[in-house]
Amino acid sequence: MTPAGPSKIEGGLCAPQGFRAAGVAAAIKDGSTKNDCALVVSNATAAAAGTFTTNLFKAPPVQLSEAVCRSGHARAVFVNSGNANACTGERGEADARAMAERVAAGLDVAADEVCVLSTGIIGVPLPMDRIANGVDACLGALSPAGGHDAALAIMTTDTVPKETAVEVALGSGVVRIGAIAKGSGMIAPNMATMISLITTDAALDPNHLSDLLRAAVRVSFNCICIDNDMSTSDAVIGLANGASGVPELAPGSEDAATFGAALTAVCTEMAQALVRDGEGASKFVTIDVAGAADDDDARTIARSVAVSQLCKTAFAGEDPNWGRIACAAGYAGADFDPARLCVWLDGVRVMEDGMPADFEEADAAAVMQQPEFTIRMRVGDGPGICVFWTSDLSHEYVTINADYRT
Amino acid sequence: MTPAGPSKIEGGLCAPQGFRAAGVAAAIKDGSTKNDCALVVSNATAAAAGTFTTNLFKAPPVQLSEAVCRSGHARAVFVNSGNANACTGERGEADARAMAERVAAGLDVAADEVCVLSTGIIGVPLPMDRIANGVDACLGALSPAGGHDAALAIMTTDTVPKETAVEVALGSGVVRIGAIAKGSGMIAPNMATMISLITTDAALDPNHLSDLLRAAVRVSFNCICIDNDMSTSDAVIGLANGASGVPELAPGSEDAATFGAALTAVCTEMAQALVRDGEGASKFVTIDVAGAADDDDARTIARSVAVSQLCKTAFAGEDPNWGRIACAAGYAGADFDPARLCVWLDGVRVMEDGMPADFEEADAAAVMQQPEFTIRMRVGDGPGICVFWTSDLSHEYVTINADYRT
Repeated sequence: MTPAGPSKIEGGLCAPQGFRAAGVAAAIKDGSTKNDCALVVSNATAAAAGTFTTNLFKAPPVQLSEAVCRSGHARAVFVNSGNANACTGERGEADARAMAERVAAGLDVAADEVCVLSTGIIGVPLPMDRIANGVDACLGALSPAGGHDAALAIMTTDTVPKETAVEVALGSGVVRIGAIAKGSGMIAPNMATMISLITTDAALDPNHLSDLLRAAVRVSFNCICIDNDMSTSDAVIGLANGASGVPELAPGSEDAATFGAALTAVCTEMAQALVRDGEGASKFVTIDVAGAADDDDARTIARSVAVSQLCKTAFAGEDPNWGRIACAAGYAGADFDPARLCVWLDGVRVMEDGMPADFEEADAAAVMQQPEFTIRMRVGDGPGICVFWTSDLSHEYVTINADYRT
Repeated sequence: MTPAGPSKIEGGLCAPQGFRAAGVAAAIKDGSTKNDCALVVSNATAAAAGTFTTNLFKAPPVQLSEAVCRSGHARAVFVNSGNANACTGERGEADARAMAERVAAGLDVAADEVCVLSTGIIGVPLPMDRIANGVDACLGALSPAGGHDAALAIMTTDTVPKETAVEVALGSGVVRIGAIAKGSGMIAPNMATMISLITTDAALDPNHLSDLLRAAVRVSFNCICIDNDMSTSDAVIGLANGASGVPELAPGSEDAATFGAALTAVCTEMAQALVRDGEGASKFVTIDVAGAADDDDARTIARSVAVSQLCKTAFAGEDPNWGRIACAAGYAGADFDPARLCVWLDGVRVMEDGMPADFEEADAAAVMQQPEFTIRMRVGDGPGICVFWTSDLSHEYVTINADYRT
C-alpha cells in the first residue's frame, strides 16, 4: 500500500522536476524595490490549463493567457506585480503580446507558448522599458531554486508569500506538485481577484489537467471570500510537464483520483493562505454547510454567510450573533426549511430547529474570541455540502481600502 | 391645468383624512424609555397592500400582515420596536395573533383587519404583558396628531425619525399621502430590512393600490443599499381609505398616473432618508446607470457598485477610484461592452470608452469630498436605466455593527 495523502516537501514552485523559476525587482511601480517580476519555465513543453476571472473587464494579459491555455500547451508563465495592465485598451493588448514575445525570444520558444499575467494598479499603461528589464533579468536568473523569489515577486498587498509543494505517491510512481499564490484583497469566489501558478511533473493530457484543475478550484479558490469583489486580472494556471517519468495519468484511474485529491489539497492550502492574509483580517472563519438539497445550494448558503457585512462585522466584534447567520442563510436564495436550521459555533449549538438553542452566551463568545473557528450549519436532510472560508470585516480593512491608491 | 407634482404638507402619517395614530413607550426592550409601540388606524375600512421581506426566516408578524394584505382590506397597523418576534417558532405566531386580536378588540373590528409588525432583537419571545400595555396605551392615545409619535416609536438604531406627507391635485379632486419609515442598518434591495407605513385618503381598489405600491417600491425602497443584508421582519404597508371623497381612481387613468407618481415620490423620499441615516454613513451616493440593455440590467450594474465593499470604502476614503467602479460593473452579471463604459463623478468624466479619461485628479477628489455626489455610468446605447442610492462603508459602520447586541 502507498501511504494515503500527499506529503509536504520543500521547493515550492520548482519542487516538481523540470521547472526553473526566478523573481527579480524591476521597479514596475515607481520607487518600488521589491521583487515584482516572476518567471516560471518548464524545461519541456507542458500541458497547460487555467481558470480566469469572469469580469467583463478582463485584462489583456488574462485574455492572452486564456488563449494559450485553450491551446493546451505552454512553456512559461511570466507575472509582473505593480501594474495590472487592465483598462488599457489596444495599447494594453500590444503590451501583453510584447511581454510574451520577449520571454519567448529569450527562451527560444514560440510566443504562443508563453502566458503572461499582470497585477496591481489598473488603467495605467505598463512601463514597457522596465518590463523588458524585468523579463531579461528573470531569464538570466532562472534556477531550480527560484520558486521562492517568484513567490515574493507576485505579492501586492500580501503580507507573506504563499507557496507550497507536495509529493504524491501513485501506483505508477512518485509525482510532485508545487504552487505559489498572491492576493489578499478583492478575493471572491468565481476564480477572480487572485493569481496562483501550479506546477507538476506528472504527465497529463491537457483536457484531463483542465478537468482536474477546475474540480480543485471549485472547492478551494472558489470557496473563499474576503470582500466579494472580483478583479479584472486574476487567474490560476497549471502546468504539467511529465518530467517525473511517471506514465500519463489515465482519466478515471485510481492514480488520477489520487493526483486530483493532492491537487485539491494544494489549491486548498493556497486558498486558505489567501484568506488568512486577507486585508485587515483578524479571524479565519470556516463555514461548513450540510443537509442542503445539493452542493450548489450548500455553496449558496455558505457564501451568503461568508460575504455578509453584518456577519463579518460580528466576527470582528467576537459577537456570537446567530441571528445574523440565520438571516444571511435565509436570504441566500437557496430553498430550505427555516424550521430545520441548526447552527453550531465550533461545539456550541446556538440554534436548533430554527430557534435559539439553550446555550451559555459565554461559551459561544469564547469560541468567537479564538483567531479561528467554524460555523457549522445543518439546513435539512439533503446530500448537499460545502465548506467555505472567510475573514472578518475589521476597522483595519476599512483603513487599508479607504485609501489604497495614494 | 393642475400644478405639476405633489406639494409637501405637514401632518405625516395622519395628513390624509380619516386616519389617527399614536406612539407610546412600553419598555419592550428592558430599560428603554423611548416610544416603542405605534398604531395607525383608519376610521373606515381601507384598501390594504404590502410588500414584504423575501427572507426564508419571515417573522410571524410579517406572515400575519401578508395574509391581511392578501385579503385586500385593513383597519389598522400596530408596530413595536425593541423585539422582532423572529425565530420564535409557534409561540411567536401565537403572540403575533394575540397582538392583532388585542388591537382589534380595542377598535371593535375583526382581527383579520389588523396588521402587526415587530422590529428589534430576534430569537427572543415578545414580552406580551408589555405589548398588551403598549396596545392599550396606543388605543387610548389615538389622535389625528399622532403621526409623529408613531414615527418615533418605530425607530431602532435610526438617529432621526422619518416621515413625510404630500397633497396631490388630481383632475377629480385633492388627495393626500402620508408616510413614516424606519431602518438605518440592514437596508438592502428586495424589500427587506426596513418598515414603512403609507396612508392615503384616495380611494383605490386593493389590486390597484397593490400595483401602484409595487411599482413605487421597485424604484425607491428596492433601489437602496446600506449593507446588503436582508432582515427577517420588514415590510411596506399601504392603506387607502377613500376619506378624501375623491372618486375611486380608475386604473390607467391620468389621475392614477399622477397619484402613482406622488406615491413614488413619497417612497423615494423615505428610501433616501433611510440611506442618509445609514449606520455610520457619512456619504450619500447616487448611482445613475444608463444605456443598459434594459432596466433590469441597469439595476444589476447599479446594485453591484452600490454594494461593493471596495467601492464603499473608497467612498469613505474620498478616493475617486474609478477602477473599483468599473470592476464592480464588470462582474455585476449584466452583459455590456466594457469598451463602451463611461463614468462621471458629478461633472467630472473619469472613464471614457473603458479607459481612464483625461481628468484632473484634484477635480475628481473634490467631488468625493462632498457629503453627496453622483456616480453616473453609461454602459452603451440601450434604453435601460436605474437610479440607486447607497452610502459609504466607514469605521463607524464597523464600530456600530461589531457590537450591536450588547
